[in-house]
Parts: sequence; structure tokens; C-alpha cells
Amino acid sequence: MSDVPYDVQDIRKDFPILAREVNGKPLVYLDNGASAQKPQVVIDAVTRGYAEEYSNVHRGLHYLSNLATEKYEGVREIIARFLGVKDVEEIVMTSGSTEGLNLVAYGWAMPHLQAGDEIVLSVMEHHANIVPWHLLRERQGVVLKWVDVDVNGDLDPQAVIDAIGPKTKLVAVTHMSNVLGTVVDVKAIVAGAHARGVPVVVDGSQATVHGPVDLDDIGADFYAITGHKLYGPSGSGAIHIRRERMDEMRPFFGGGDMIRHVHKDAVEYADPPMKFEAGTPNIVQQIGLGVALEYLMDLGMENIAAHERALRDYTRDRLDGLNWLNVQGRSAGKGAIFSFTLDGGAHPHDISTVLDKKGVAVRAGHHCAGPLMDHLGVSATCRASFGLYNTRDEVDKLVEALELCHDLFS
Amino acid sequence: MSDVPYDVQDIRKDFPILAREVNGKPLVYLDNGASAQKPQVVIDAVTRGYAEEYSNVHRGLHYLSNLATEKYEGVREIIARFLGVKDVEEIVMTSGSTEGLNLVAYGWAMPHLQAGDEIVLSVMEHHANIVPWHLLRERQGVVLKWVDVDVNGDLDPQAVIDAIGPKTKLVAVTHMSNVLGTVVDVKAIVAGAHARGVPVVVDGSQATVHGPVDLDDIGADFYAITGHKLYGPSGSGAIHIRRERMDEMRPFFGGGDMIRHVHKDAVEYADPPMKFEAGTPNIVQQIGLGVALEYLMDLGMENIAAHERALRDYTRDRLDGLNWLNVQGRSAGKGAIFSFTLDGGAHPHDISTVLDKKGVAVRAGHHCAGPLMDHLGVSATCRASFGLYNTRDEVDKLVEALELCHDLFS
Repeated sequence: MSDVPYDVQDIRKDFPILAREVNGKPLVYLDNGASAQKPQVVIDAVTRGYAEEYSNVHRGLHYLSNLATEKYEGVREIIARFLGVKDVEEIVMTSGSTEGLNLVAYGWAMPHLQAGDEIVLSVMEHHANIVPWHLLRERQGVVLKWVDVDVNGDLDPQAVIDAIGPKTKLVAVTHMSNVLGTVVDVKAIVAGAHARGVPVVVDGSQATVHGPVDLDDIGADFYAITGHKLYGPSGSGAIHIRRERMDEMRPFFGGGDMIRHVHKDAVEYADPPMKFEAGTPNIVQQIGLGVALEYLMDLGMENIAAHERALRDYTRDRLDGLNWLNVQGRSAGKGAIFSFTLDGGAHPHDISTVLDKKGVAVRAGHHCAGPLMDHLGVSATCRASFGLYNTRDEVDKLVEALELCHDLFS
Repeated sequence: MSDVPYDVQDIRKDFPILAREVNGKPLVYLDNGASAQKPQVVIDAVTRGYAEEYSNVHRGLHYLSNLATEKYEGVREIIARFLGVKDVEEIVMTSGSTEGLNLVAYGWAMPHLQAGDEIVLSVMEHHANIVPWHLLRERQGVVLKWVDVDVNGDLDPQAVIDAIGPKTKLVAVTHMSNVLGTVVDVKAIVAGAHARGVPVVVDGSQATVHGPVDLDDIGADFYAITGHKLYGPSGSGAIHIRRERMDEMRPFFGGGDMIRHVHKDAVEYADPPMKFEAGTPNIVQQIGLGVALEYLMDLGMENIAAHERALRDYTRDRLDGLNWLNVQGRSAGKGAIFSFTLDGGAHPHDISTVLDKKGVAVRAGHHCAGPLMDHLGVSATCRASFGLYNTRDEVDKLVEALELCHDLFS
């Protein structure tokens, strides 16, 4: 592999929105942590899905229904391949990580956890991997046991394992922080938790976007991904659930497709994964997700990781040169996600507004990570989050715009 | 209004898929009850949403995020207008009716119903409006109380009201049967149920597609719609929930956006409707749904209803001429949905396969209506379901293909 894993200017041509201007400036899209832009092949797949090949799936026998079903069900295999999952029936299609994690909460945790039982989770979880557990706390007295990150934003796997006690029934942890970029050694956590007989749910929303992930190697019980961050359509996603856990789960959504028979006095459920997929699914979105994952695999997740590592190093160096800027999270192996505040108390919202005038799109706020904000002692940060199509030139534009902010607000 | 509410040949040009062939024959798409095809304006809105205007919503401050948020939130107002709802904050965006009805089951019914409490429902409900209640039966001893339809497939509103007893806590009823086409007088049911202090949840998945619906007039507590049947994208939808019921509901999905604050030991929820919308929503799909609803309103729901009434009458007359064909459902005011079996025991699956060879797409199976199949004494039917773009010529093609079936299977 060369130092330049791919020609990023060539790749940028695949993403039509990157050619546009905002506020009279070329778009510098650094909000990939919130959602990624879509390559033309994905947009084309969605267009074709509606204009030429649309029908409801599963229950039809006519040509278009068979075609749509074949394409839709084919995505399950693509997702399994993308994640390194051998058993394609362990893939449940969802509208994104939020649905996936709530499926775990309602389908597995709600019937398994009693008052006083504990869920161990890290302080840097996204709300999608917090609030479902808070709901169990409020409703059935489950106890949330938090594990802090260190000063660099690293999460010690042993600290998570050590937090597991006799009442612990589940560990919930992110694979990559959406605020700090920290990559978590989830494999070590899974090994330690399993040695204590405790299942692990991993929020893979960020990690799967930025490098290769092998779930067969990691061994987590539940692993949620979200399509819109993976350069796929909004409302697409999946969760991998190990068969042993599937067997322990009760259905979540009731409706069509997840049943074998419904009578007045009885209902018989379909086998997994259909048992957990009720109603008309997000047909065209999932077909688009399949194309997005094929696009990523063609480009090579190792290549994307290499490109983003180079971007991360360059961004870190450039931001380190701004001594009035405080970057949160200094984990050595972090992803290209930079949350920061400015000396002098300029509000992140105001900073992002100034950056926007220069065409630089960043996010400002709590990034759906309230406990981490509390831990860091801030109410909000600005976040520049990079994707496979970002460039050094865009880092320079970010820095230039930040210097303007510094001039304005200091 | 003239006898011809619109030029259907002109309208057909709006739907690109209708120009295609299947199996070497022009597509005759009569599977609208399962899902409708999409007009070009909807496809264009989706394409533009990804290619020019994409970002995550709500939490950004940059140009694209503001643009996407404005468009996405604008759809809430369009849905309210389409449904005749005055308070736009009573509209909760969903991925479709299944999510909407499960939201009612988990958010309202689960905490309100005890063992022995009853839910009254009609025998012709879709599984989406059955299985969520079966889950409550299995999990907390709720009793399902079924109301039959008469020989024509009509549901007597008074029979539903009479089924309400002191233990009844909810009535769940469809506004239009997806199998029989029966239109239910949900306004009368709501009035009778409310007089007894019992809320009503209406499955509007079919009714909203085929004629004007005024929820202010109907007065139901919960009314679910699904975008993919409304000529909108897959994975779009909404549910109207009256404010009094919203105030009684607990959150369903936990995650981003549905919270105000999240700390380690506490969580504060957002106000409705956001309280019930967790995580990154189906952004582009909902934007597409808004365009679909505008398209329908521009065409005029009264006009669509008139067009489909004429089609229904013509189809009824033509099918009545086939004395070896048994149509299920003879309600006078029914929609243009025809479920049927053939004398001689030809399986509906085989019939639909023969029809498909002639380009005629119908559905065969239980149509997610198990209890109704039991009631009718059949395991499956064929169903031809019409939409705003179908023509008399297509009815003739259906009949021609059915005659071929009769020849083949008799």
C-alpha cells in the first residue's frame, strides 16, 4: 500500500454534493460524524429502485416484487460480508443504530434484567447507547454503572471489565467515540465480559465508517451500525446479533412479516431475523445501503483508514499550532474527529456560524453525548469530523476560518 | 366536478415505472394495496435531497443542516394539512404505520393496561394493528375482544361500540380494509367509544390513500399513516396523536433528539412530538413524503376518490361477469380493492403467477390479515388493488388474464 491509498480528487467526483457552494464558497463538509454524503452510485440505486424496480417485498409473487425482494434480501449478505459475519441470518435490518439498540433494550434487556441488575457503560457513549438504558433504569430499576475515560479520552478495557460485578447483566460500549474519536478495544472488553458471563452490546455507528471491522474476531453479542453515516441513505441500517442472543430475545415490533401465523387467540412468530423485522421495511434505503457498502469495500476500508489517518495527523498538527484552541481527546489511535473549544469563551454555536460563512460545515452542540460533556466540564463543543473524501486543503480552510473566529471573538 | 376527474393518461406519465414492461408485457400494476408507485416529483425530491441538499437535521447550524431541517420539519405541516389536523405538534413522524401503531402499544397501552383489560378490535385488521396487541396479551394478560364483519364485509359501528365493556381500555380499528376494501365509519366508532371514555386507535394506512380524510372531524386519539402506500418513499410515515394522549404517553425509542438533557443519573425528555422521535430520522424519505402529499392534494383527494369509484364499479361489473370467480367483500361503499378466489381450488399463488406472465401484478397470500382469512374460511386470496393511475383498460387486461387462468386451471 502506498502513502496515497487513493486519489481523493477522483473520489470526490463520485459525490455530487461536494461540487456545490454554500454561502458563495466551495462546500467544506466536515460534519461526517453526524451524517455522510452519498456517492452517485447510491443515489442512482435509489432512483432506479423507485423509477424502474419498485414494489413491496416478501409477500408478492409478481415480477417486480420478486425483483425488489431479491435486491433487498441481497443486502443482508452484503452487510454480513462488510462486517465479517459468517451467518447472514444473524443480520437484522433496521432504520439505523437507534432502532438497533432499542431492539436490544426491548427485545433482550427488558425481559432479562430485574431491579438492581446493572448495565456497565462508558461515559463517552452516544445518547443512542444511553437513553435506552436510562428507560430501563426508570421503568424497572436497572442500575447504570459508568466507566470514565482518562485525560486523553482513552477508555481502559480493563476498567470496563473491572466494573463488571455479580449484578452486571450487560456491557454497553461504543467502538469509536463520536466526540473524541477514541477507538475502543472492544475485543478485549468482549473477552473480559464473556469470561464473566456478561454479554456486550457495541455501538458501531462510527467505527464501521472509518476502518475495517471484523465482528467474527470481536465476538460482541450485539453490534449496531447505521447506514446514513456509512455513505448510504437515511433510514438504513442493521444490527448483528449472535444466534444465542437471538434465541433469548422476544419480538419487539409487532406487525406483518415477523409472524408465521396470526389468529384471534394466538400468534406464531417467524424465525430470526424476520422475527425482528415487522412491517414493510425500508426497501429502497436498504438497497442503497448495499450499494454504499459495496462502494466502500471496492475502495477498501484499509485504504479509507490510511487516508483518514493521514488527514488526522495533518489536522492534529495544524490545530496544535493554534494555541488558543483546545482539542478534546488526544488518544494516539483516534479517528479523524476533532472536538474543540476556543479560549475566551466564544460559544461553539457562534464559531460554527462563522465557519459556515466560509463554507466550512462543522457541528456545534453536545453531540448527543451529555455525560461526556459533563465529564469534560463543557456544555458544548465544535466538532470537525472527516470522511473518506476530505482533503488537506479542506483542513487548511478549516484552520483559516478558525483564525478568523479567533480574530473576531478574542 | 365532471365524470372524468382527471386525464388518467396524463397522470400516468408522472410515474416512470408505469411505462415499463414485465415479462414482455406492459406493466399492469394492481398491487397498490401493498405499496404504491412513485411520481417523478417524489423521485426527484429524493435525488435532490441526496445530491444537493443533504445533511443531518436538528443539531447543526451550518447551511446544509439548516436547509435539510427546514425541509424536513416542513413536512410535518404538510402532513397536518393533508390529514386535517390543526395542531402540527400532534404529528409524530414515523417510518410507517407499523412503527406508529407500535408506538401506541409501547408508549400508551403498555403502561396503561393491566391484566384483564380489554382491547376491542375488528376481525379485518391488518397484522400491524393486531400483533402489537397480541404482544400485550402475551406479556401482560390484556384480552383481545374481536368484532366480526357481516357477510358483505361491513363492520357495524354499533357492534364495535357494543363490544366496549367496563374493562375495555382501547379500541383498535382500521379505516379501510386492505383485503375487502370496506370503509369503516370510524367517526361513529370514535363518538361511541369516547362516550364510554375509551380512546380509539385507527389504522389509516389504506383509507388515506383513496380519498379525503379529516381527522379533526373523525376525532380519533391515534391515527397512523404510511408513506409508501401514499405514493411516497419506503420508510416514511406519521401518526397523529391527540395532545391529551401524548401527555399520557411515555417515550418509546430512547436516543438522540428525544431528550433535552442526559446525565449519568438523570434524563429529561423533549416535549412532544420530538419526545417520540429518537435518533437521526428518515430525513430524505420524509421530504419525499411531503412532495407526495402535495402531489395528491394538487390532484385532489376528491378527484382520486371519484376516479377510483368509477374503476371500482367497472371492475365489480366485469368480475361479476365471471361466474367461476368469488369476490370477498361486497360492501356498497368499498374501495377499489378486490380479493378473490377461483372455483376449482386453483391456488392464489398459481393464479398470480399466471397473471404475472401477462404483466398483471397482483398479490396472493393472507395479506397480513390472518383473523380475516380465518373468518372467511380461506388460507389465501388473490388481491387486485387499484390506485389513482389505474385504467379501465387495465381492468380488461386483468379479466382477460383471469379468463386464461380459468381455462388453465378448470
